[in-house]
Amino acid sequence: MKIDFFTLFPDMFQGVLSQSILKKAQEKNAVEFSVVNFRDFSENKHQNVDDYPYGGGAGMVLTPQPIFDAVEELQGKSNTKPRVILVCPQGARFNQAKAEELATEEHLLFICGHYEGYDERIREHLVTDEISIGDFVLTGGELASMVIADSVVRLLPGVLGNADSPVLDSYSSGLLEHPHYTRPAEFRGLKVPEVLLSGNHKLIEEWREKESFRRTFLRRPDLLDSYPLSEQHKKWLQEFKNQS
Amino acid sequence: MKIDFFTLFPDMFQGVLSQSILKKAQEKNAVEFSVVNFRDFSENKHQNVDDYPYGGGAGMVLTPQPIFDAVEELQGKSNTKPRVILVCPQGARFNQAKAEELATEEHLLFICGHYEGYDERIREHLVTDEISIGDFVLTGGELASMVIADSVVRLLPGVLGNADSPVLDSYSSGLLEHPHYTRPAEFRGLKVPEVLLSGNHKLIEEWREKESFRRTFLRRPDLLDSYPLSEQHKKWLQEFKNQS
Repeated sequence: MKIDFFTLFPDMFQGVLSQSILKKAQEKNAVEFSVVNFRDFSENKHQNVDDYPYGGGAGMVLTPQPIFDAVEELQGKSNTKPRVILVCPQGARFNQAKAEELATEEHLLFICGHYEGYDERIREHLVTDEISIGDFVLTGGELASMVIADSVVRLLPGVLGNADSPVLDSYSSGLLEHPHYTRPAEFRGLKVPEVLLSGNHKLIEEWREKESFRRTFLRRPDLLDSYPLSEQHKKWLQEFKNQS
Repeated sequence: MKIDFFTLFPDMFQGVLSQSILKKAQEKNAVEFSVVNFRDFSENKHQNVDDYPYGGGAGMVLTPQPIFDAVEELQGKSNTKPRVILVCPQGARFNQAKAEELATEEHLLFICGHYEGYDERIREHLVTDEISIGDFVLTGGELASMVIADSVVRLLPGVLGNADSPVLDSYSSGLLEHPHYTRPAEFRGLKVPEVLLSGNHKLIEEWREKESFRRTFLRRPDLLDSYPLSEQHKKWLQEFKNQS
């Protein structure tokens, strides 16, 4: 996979792209990153990339020319038709299903605005996807693009070794994860639940399933709406409701 | 405000913290960052910070000792009682209201896991807040912590100058933003809507309000559930429904 980031702040990316899974994924040739400063494509003699909004108002708006030219130059070099992604609060909400979908693409291209708004012609005529990572305001699209890239790249074949096996994957089962415990068995008087030390795998499995279900009930009951409930689940549900 | 990041990948932070608004906020003394490698606090002779899960299973689990010691050392030096934030998919959903709440604190402390799960005693006895930025899986908590920090720091008094005035702030009015346009008035045959060039401020204001309302209707109708509708809004709503 190829991933390009178009930004006015290329130095924001170096640390994230050169560490951990994103570093490993490059070493394994699963992904190739490039970070492009679209200011370099400005035809304006001062290399401006934004201008005042038509109709007045506060703030600046990114002009179409540098972004169109930068994206088209990269598209021209590419054998594949990239997804051109604008990260912005108005986009479709990013989630694990979207990550899995993007992981099947050969080429992703992120346009990161910063402070400014985008000229609408960029949205309408250049961009293929508008994506939001949530209902909050960020200074720019850089961090949101890196978030999306991380969640996509770790899904590419061969990127996650067994050693990195995803215990954090709360969504794979449709329920939140059960609690984890490791050594020591007692830390400052706080003990690990006895069942986990019992060696009885059947009981451990049952405890984990129940605690996973309990946590989902307490924290994300919305996930249970679409979850197929067994008779055991229904009993647990009744028990949790009686306790709460 | 003071913000501490506890991580095993401190090099991920440098680029993001030294650019743009986070850089400016430090220069203006609105925020002070520190990035702490909690491996330095491991009492294990190999500086291990994780171990196998009790009860078996794949993946590793972060042990309580290094994280408890690292956090408590920083808490001891602090005059304030920090919010100790664990970023994880099981936490409460981050949003703009949460950003505004956190912006009133004096000290935030982020614990970033990476691949591993957390020993439950960390969640139960050290952490004050568990926060998720969305329903997707990341390799670690680092990017999510930076996202939260960015959205909080830009709300601190004096951080955003007028020049950075937030045209991206889609949530302040309760509606999504209207489209923006800037120069040139025609780009590759694509024209700016005439009303924006008219100089008629009343018509421009009305166009913007309607397009903001239209975009919200088309993309985020859920936001209208709690929005106080005027008679004009109801007429527009009828018009949009007839068109769609």
